[in-house]
Amino acid sequence: MSNISFFVPKGPFSINELFKGFSGQADQLEITDVKTLDKATKNHITFLNSNDYIDFAKTTKASACVTTSKLKKYLPKNCLTIVVKNVLFSIAEISKKFYPKADIDYPDQTLVEYSKHVSKFDTVTFGKNIFIGKDVKISSNSIIGSNTIIEHDVKIGENCIIGANVTLRNVLIGKNVVIQDGSKIGVKGFGFIPLKDKNFRFPHIGRVIINDNVEIGANCTIDRGSIGDTVIGNNTFLDNQVHIAHNVKIGENCMIAGQVGFAGSTSIGNNVSIGGQAGISGHLKIGNNVRIGGGSGVVKNIPDGTTVMGYPAVTLKEFLKKK
Amino acid sequence: MSNISFFVPKGPFSINELFKGFSGQADQLEITDVKTLDKATKNHITFLNSNDYIDFAKTTKASACVTTSKLKKYLPKNCLTIVVKNVLFSIAEISKKFYPKADIDYPDQTLVEYSKHVSKFDTVTFGKNIFIGKDVKISSNSIIGSNTIIEHDVKIGENCIIGANVTLRNVLIGKNVVIQDGSKIGVKGFGFIPLKDKNFRFPHIGRVIINDNVEIGANCTIDRGSIGDTVIGNNTFLDNQVHIAHNVKIGENCMIAGQVGFAGSTSIGNNVSIGGQAGISGHLKIGNNVRIGGGSGVVKNIPDGTTVMGYPAVTLKEFLKKK
Amino acid sequence: MSNISFFVPKGPFSINELFKGFSGQADQLEITDVKTLDKATKNHITFLNSNDYIDFAKTTKASACVTTSKLKKYLPKNCLTIVVKNVLFSIAEISKKFYPKADIDYPDQTLVEYSKHVSKFDTVTFGKNIFIGKDVKISSNSIIGSNTIIEHDVKIGENCIIGANVTLRNVLIGKNVVIQDGSKIGVKGFGFIPLKDKNFRFPHIGRVIINDNVEIGANCTIDRGSIGDTVIGNNTFLDNQVHIAHNVKIGENCMIAGQVGFAGSTSIGNNVSIGGQAGISGHLKIGNNVRIGGGSGVVKNIPDGTTVMGYPAVTLKEFLKKK
Repeated sequence: MSNISFFVPKGPFSINELFKGFSGQADQLEITDVKTLDKATKNHITFLNSNDYIDFAKTTKASACVTTSKLKKYLPKNCLTIVVKNVLFSIAEISKKFYPKADIDYPDQTLVEYSKHVSKFDTVTFGKNIFIGKDVKISSNSIIGSNTIIEHDVKIGENCIIGANVTLRNVLIGKNVVIQDGSKIGVKGFGFIPLKDKNFRFPHIGRVIINDNVEIGANCTIDRGSIGDTVIGNNTFLDNQVHIAHNVKIGENCMIAGQVGFAGSTSIGNNVSIGGQAGISGHLKIGNNVRIGGGSGVVKNIPDGTTVMGYPAVTLKEFLKKK
Repeated sequence: MSNISFFVPKGPFSINELFKGFSGQADQLEITDVKTLDKATKNHITFLNSNDYIDFAKTTKASACVTTSKLKKYLPKNCLTIVVKNVLFSIAEISKKFYPKADIDYPDQTLVEYSKHVSKFDTVTFGKNIFIGKDVKISSNSIIGSNTIIEHDVKIGENCIIGANVTLRNVLIGKNVVIQDGSKIGVKGFGFIPLKDKNFRFPHIGRVIINDNVEIGANCTIDRGSIGDTVIGNNTFLDNQVHIAHNVKIGENCMIAGQVGFAGSTSIGNNVSIGGQAGISGHLKIGNNVRIGGGSGVVKNIPDGTTVMGYPAVTLKEFLKKK
Repeated sequence: MSNISFFVPKGPFSINELFKGFSGQADQLEITDVKTLDKATKNHITFLNSNDYIDFAKTTKASACVTTSKLKKYLPKNCLTIVVKNVLFSIAEISKKFYPKADIDYPDQTLVEYSKHVSKFDTVTFGKNIFIGKDVKISSNSIIGSNTIIEHDVKIGENCIIGANVTLRNVLIGKNVVIQDGSKIGVKGFGFIPLKDKNFRFPHIGRVIINDNVEIGANCTIDRGSIGDTVIGNNTFLDNQVHIAHNVKIGENCMIAGQVGFAGSTSIGNNVSIGGQAGISGHLKIGNNVRIGGGSGVVKNIPDGTTVMGYPAVTLKEFLKKK
């Protein structure tokens, strides 16, 4: 499902068009898109802003990278590095150059009431008052609830059940997926650079990718990726009112109870179970087969196979000792 | 309100049709429905899977019960017991036999824009763009907000105020009830048996029963019962973003603040007050006149009249001692 | 934005009409409206029920005030004081006299599909199926998402982006404001006086005031003020699923992460950052430049510049010492 983009980037731009007054050796390098370290290939620009991503930096195939003087050394020799003071601000400005409309992406002006749609959805069952945008695909035997909005380019696999009052934008959905009433998928994430008069909003140009056999409860919110995607793995089940921030990756066969929240860019392994109302901080790596107790607050990485509890979350053994 | 069912069960089935190769003494016993221990009567099949329900088991009027070899002894002599390895899996399969469409219950194909409805709702005030299913009843002086969906067989008593963007399915509502904007009532609960490729979803065939004088805030989620019902007692008030899982029973005159979450099958007494963001684990029994502090995590039963706080919640005395 | 009221008060009423059998010296005093201590002016009645508001009491310009025998002494000499046993019950009854329809304020019977509206919204971009009430104003270059409801008298400034499935009632919105999908703004708060058969609902006649450059995530809930307003300051950003109760005041340049909850009447200073899932109790005063860790439970006032964490929240130093 990974070749679909919800926006076509502007450009290409030369390095000098992206960085006015750039004095490095850029020659004829043309940049065609902005991507994360792991997804970038030839002619893409990427960014490195944290020690957490050094492993990705070492093997990136990007042609250029915005970074700091300290982190520069981790990038491959053939990747042009541009050292800046504020990496996020710089990459945000570049993103806006490639995707100038990413911040005003709604409402989708291509929405049409489903029965008037030129695309045919012959084997799909529809409720009432459903609006569908351009180039939406809904595969056979899927069911779409009433008052649901499906914006342009959304893809829905076969045998899916989408509830009522759902909004789907910037999302690719596999087969046998259930999304219950009122969930909002693909909204802009909580990414911005604080400024005094008006915070600078980080552009969100990524997608949400929901793999096969996933279930999502009612009134959940799942943010689209900023650069890069938000991903939910096969056969992972979410209860009601779960909040998943931008760029979070959740593995396969996970079980996420009600009102759990994930902050941005955290990755969760496979076979992870998380109790109700637990919170997972941003930019963490949670291993496979991890169990997180209900109401826990997770603030650091958790290795494979560990059971944690508490606020801040510690291993079950430590938690019981403290009591 | 208890005689309305949202589905008509298939069947009847003989024990041998339900359990292939059953070698016990079933004779001509015909099973007509699947019910919880306390609601089952003659010709019903029920299940016993936990010590928590032994009291209900001893007095059940069910004609048959799926259980384990250890729990079998608690069932009445005249109740046919079928011992299985995985009680939940077995009863789920039986439920699907009686209610094959329980998992694909939406969208309601009987929905019609309210003004085109054959039923008359003469004394009801309607907003705009409201869809109502077959056999819905709305009593006098009730008010229904815009973009709200009321699925087949839902009953709403007199003097109710239902907000905008609400979805009501599988729910019976008393009189003088308020439900604010965006709440989703009667969605499927988070009940399934984990399997590697595709979790086995436990069928949800129960209802939500909301008694008189109840108020429910905005963007709440209340799951329908799996087998059995989810119940909210008279004059209980819920704030915004409360999550109530399947089979939860809440008593009368309770006060539940914002973002509280209840896991499945827990029962709450009368006159209970619960502070914001508290979480109550599943299968617990919370007594009458209990007070639960905001942000608490309740993981065990609480006797009548107790005040608890903390994570995990302890009595107020213990909590203050620990500090 | 402060001169718009969503209801016109009934009256004026004399003190003897408001308090049957009142034996104080009220003479010809006419009461025209009910307001909070700080907003009341000549011919208004107000109330004082708590030590927390003594400073406001001392300088109130109200002509009359309902209060207790203990608190009476803090009110100005020229303010007529009416001592009652239950201040909240009394002021609630007075509110209902001035605003008899405040409790049954929906659905807005003036809603019309936007394209059929007599008001012109020439420079506004609309999605589909949008309903707009009487005297709504939407300024230039704003964008309104599909299935969104904007009730009577709501004002929206220029360059705003309102998502899909949003409900706006009793709210004044500045310029450059973003509200994402599914948020419900201006619903009635969780204010009532517990009574055995049917709790007495406190009337909600206040507004929500959202100042310039604010962003609000998806599926948030913001209650209207009871008496007085709920206010969000310039350039404050809220993530998804945030819950803001009635009468909360949030300052400028605040950053509120996902699933945070605020109980009623709390005030938050400027430049405050609050981590995900934190909860703030009611009637608190949180200073400027405060940082509240994710998952914290704040139960007392916090002075300027303090960083707090934990449940209940303590200073960072204390929190680390306890660990």
